[in-house]
Amino acid sequence: MTTQPLILRKDQERRLLAGHCWIYSNEVDTQATPLKPLEPGQPVAILSRQERWIGHGYVNPRALLCARIVSRDPNQPLSPALWVKRIHDALSLRERLYDQPFYRLVFGESDGLPGLIVDRYGDLLAVQITTAGMERERAEILAALEQVLRPKTIVLRNDTAVRELEGLEQGVERILGEPADSVTINEHGLEIVVSPLTGQKTGWFFDQAENRGRLARYGVGERVLDVCSYIGAWGLRAAALGAKEVTCVDVSSPALERVAENAARNALEDRVQGMQGDAFEVLRGLRDEGRRFDTLILDPPAFIKRRKDEKDGTQAYQRLNRLGMEVLEPGGLLVTSSCSFHMGRDAFLRTVQQAARRAGRSLQLLEAGQQGPDHPVHPAIPETAYLKTLYLRVLPGF
Amino acid sequence: MTTQPLILRKDQERRLLAGHCWIYSNEVDTQATPLKPLEPGQPVAILSRQERWIGHGYVNPRALLCARIVSRDPNQPLSPALWVKRIHDALSLRERLYDQPFYRLVFGESDGLPGLIVDRYGDLLAVQITTAGMERERAEILAALEQVLRPKTIVLRNDTAVRELEGLEQGVERILGEPADSVTINEHGLEIVVSPLTGQKTGWFFDQAENRGRLARYGVGERVLDVCSYIGAWGLRAAALGAKEVTCVDVSSPALERVAENAARNALEDRVQGMQGDAFEVLRGLRDEGRRFDTLILDPPAFIKRRKDEKDGTQAYQRLNRLGMEVLEPGGLLVTSSCSFHMGRDAFLRTVQQAARRAGRSLQLLEAGQQGPDHPVHPAIPETAYLKTLYLRVLPGF
Repeated sequence: MTTQPLILRKDQERRLLAGHCWIYSNEVDTQATPLKPLEPGQPVAILSRQERWIGHGYVNPRALLCARIVSRDPNQPLSPALWVKRIHDALSLRERLYDQPFYRLVFGESDGLPGLIVDRYGDLLAVQITTAGMERERAEILAALEQVLRPKTIVLRNDTAVRELEGLEQGVERILGEPADSVTINEHGLEIVVSPLTGQKTGWFFDQAENRGRLARYGVGERVLDVCSYIGAWGLRAAALGAKEVTCVDVSSPALERVAENAARNALEDRVQGMQGDAFEVLRGLRDEGRRFDTLILDPPAFIKRRKDEKDGTQAYQRLNRLGMEVLEPGGLLVTSSCSFHMGRDAFLRTVQQAARRAGRSLQLLEAGQQGPDHPVHPAIPETAYLKTLYLRVLPGF
Repeated sequence: MTTQPLILRKDQERRLLAGHCWIYSNEVDTQATPLKPLEPGQPVAILSRQERWIGHGYVNPRALLCARIVSRDPNQPLSPALWVKRIHDALSLRERLYDQPFYRLVFGESDGLPGLIVDRYGDLLAVQITTAGMERERAEILAALEQVLRPKTIVLRNDTAVRELEGLEQGVERILGEPADSVTINEHGLEIVVSPLTGQKTGWFFDQAENRGRLARYGVGERVLDVCSYIGAWGLRAAALGAKEVTCVDVSSPALERVAENAARNALEDRVQGMQGDAFEVLRGLRDEGRRFDTLILDPPAFIKRRKDEKDGTQAYQRLNRLGMEVLEPGGLLVTSSCSFHMGRDAFLRTVQQAARRAGRSLQLLEAGQQGPDHPVHPAIPETAYLKTLYLRVLPGF
């Protein structure tokens, strides 16, 4: 065996055998296989203390999360052929589920490619590499993407803080094709201009696309408030579904300019307006003015980014949802999201229920959505499930 | 105040103030308000030890779960007007969400009507009363249903074991209209004959209707296996979506006769066949014969009916899912359900993942559905959330 072995401490393989793929540095038998001499990103063969085979993976001696399994098949080490196979597998799922090429093509661990994110905007791929292991394979990964997808443009969106945990630098790079920072995507019939080089995430929140589609199931009222609207995905969807007055609230003026541009592009400019400001302040103002809405969308950024933010973040979710319910007409629909991994589904529902009790409302949970199927959840890796979107009917307290 | 008070023991109101509506007998201050003299089903005014107002409800001194809150508004006691209002509220949600009158109209606690279930088959209402409190109000409830819905037929499906916990007898009764035990419903375009007097539940599993609709999102392959098919809801849906060979497995011959009848009614008889037998045995046989399927549906009855069945039931879910994965082609879709309240969503997903590891498969969870929005979940009452339906892509282990 030419690959360096990485031997685990006694009884540290259980989670891995159950399907997880992360190894922490305190789980490694560093007497048998010291981490220090290994290079960041170097491939390793992972074995239990009894030298039972676990899988091929890569290591980063500088990171607390020091290794990830990539393949459990002893005959399938990290290689260009493996990247091509995994990307094909990922693509075949998306091609089955989407009739247009706008989706997350690769979702890291869930697609057997830990450390790699690829969003597809038609002929443009936005790639994010988050681990030293994938960074080391970068050229092969990009070649595999070119081979399978033949994109016209590839941009690297490596401007994410998680790279720092791996000792990697942040940055944005154009790898292939023209530098245009604007592509038009189609989501459920709406044309939307997004910015893969400069927008949030890689320009678009594909993870909520399926949940936005569900608005058609539950229907929207005449007056819709879209809080933390970003470039208007929810609000435009509500307008397209027949809402007469849609107000998109965001703290960012450039985002609201995009809302206006996208509204005009879809001939919805008469129904959609922006309101710039902090979500909490705007909601308080609307409540105090007596403004009321029939449908309310709350899709804030993660309030709990790290576990230590749990208490404050939970309170923020509760405040936001309470304020939201206070501007909602009786019987109205609340669509409320949390993308905080550290707030589980049950905890989020409990928090929204607490908000309801404080606002004197009763709730009926109609559906609980997660991220769309282009962000599949790996059942053994809870960290791959982060998005919760609840559809609630809000009634006067009973 | 003419209503009898029911006073709680010290600090027993917390769960209730958070929104739950159940009171157990050991939470009642029986020195202040003895339970024994109260009649089963009698209305009570529920108060905390400090005589803080909690709500109007009803009591059953014979049951461990001895009281339920019906209204938190001091001015809204149990009354015909309250029943009419609650039924109107329930109907307005369903009328907004369904374009045809086939759904669960009232889902107990979640609709503010604890102890009452009403399924609507067009002009026929199938009613189930599960508590002494609702039994006492039976005439008023039925009158309210007649007033709001003007049904032609009402049947009472009180043949449920939960009535025994309340000291109520079981039975089926026709209250209004003709005694025909066959109605035709329409679900996503399929016409299906069901039996509201004699079928399982009230004849149809409305709770899975939304999840069956989701099959259209994920697509079906050519060969579909529908395990625990009952009268064919999933299998017929798969055939309507284009599957060429659908096999419906059920232990009940009469159910399979209905499958054939319903298949013929929808001109799907060339694509749908029944296979009578125990789910586990049939799956083992198919596996050993080398039969393979592209899409697999597992929708068994609750394996965990009581908490003490948890271990055995969990093993049964694991065995069934493992067998299922073993007859599924690589890349196939597994739709797997549990309607056991005592198995939470996370526990069910964990169990299915364990089955996958044992079968040497990797899973991608595309979506996790719950019961449809005509069975809304009450966020403060976990008992109202019981159904889990997972959509998983099953790959060779990676």
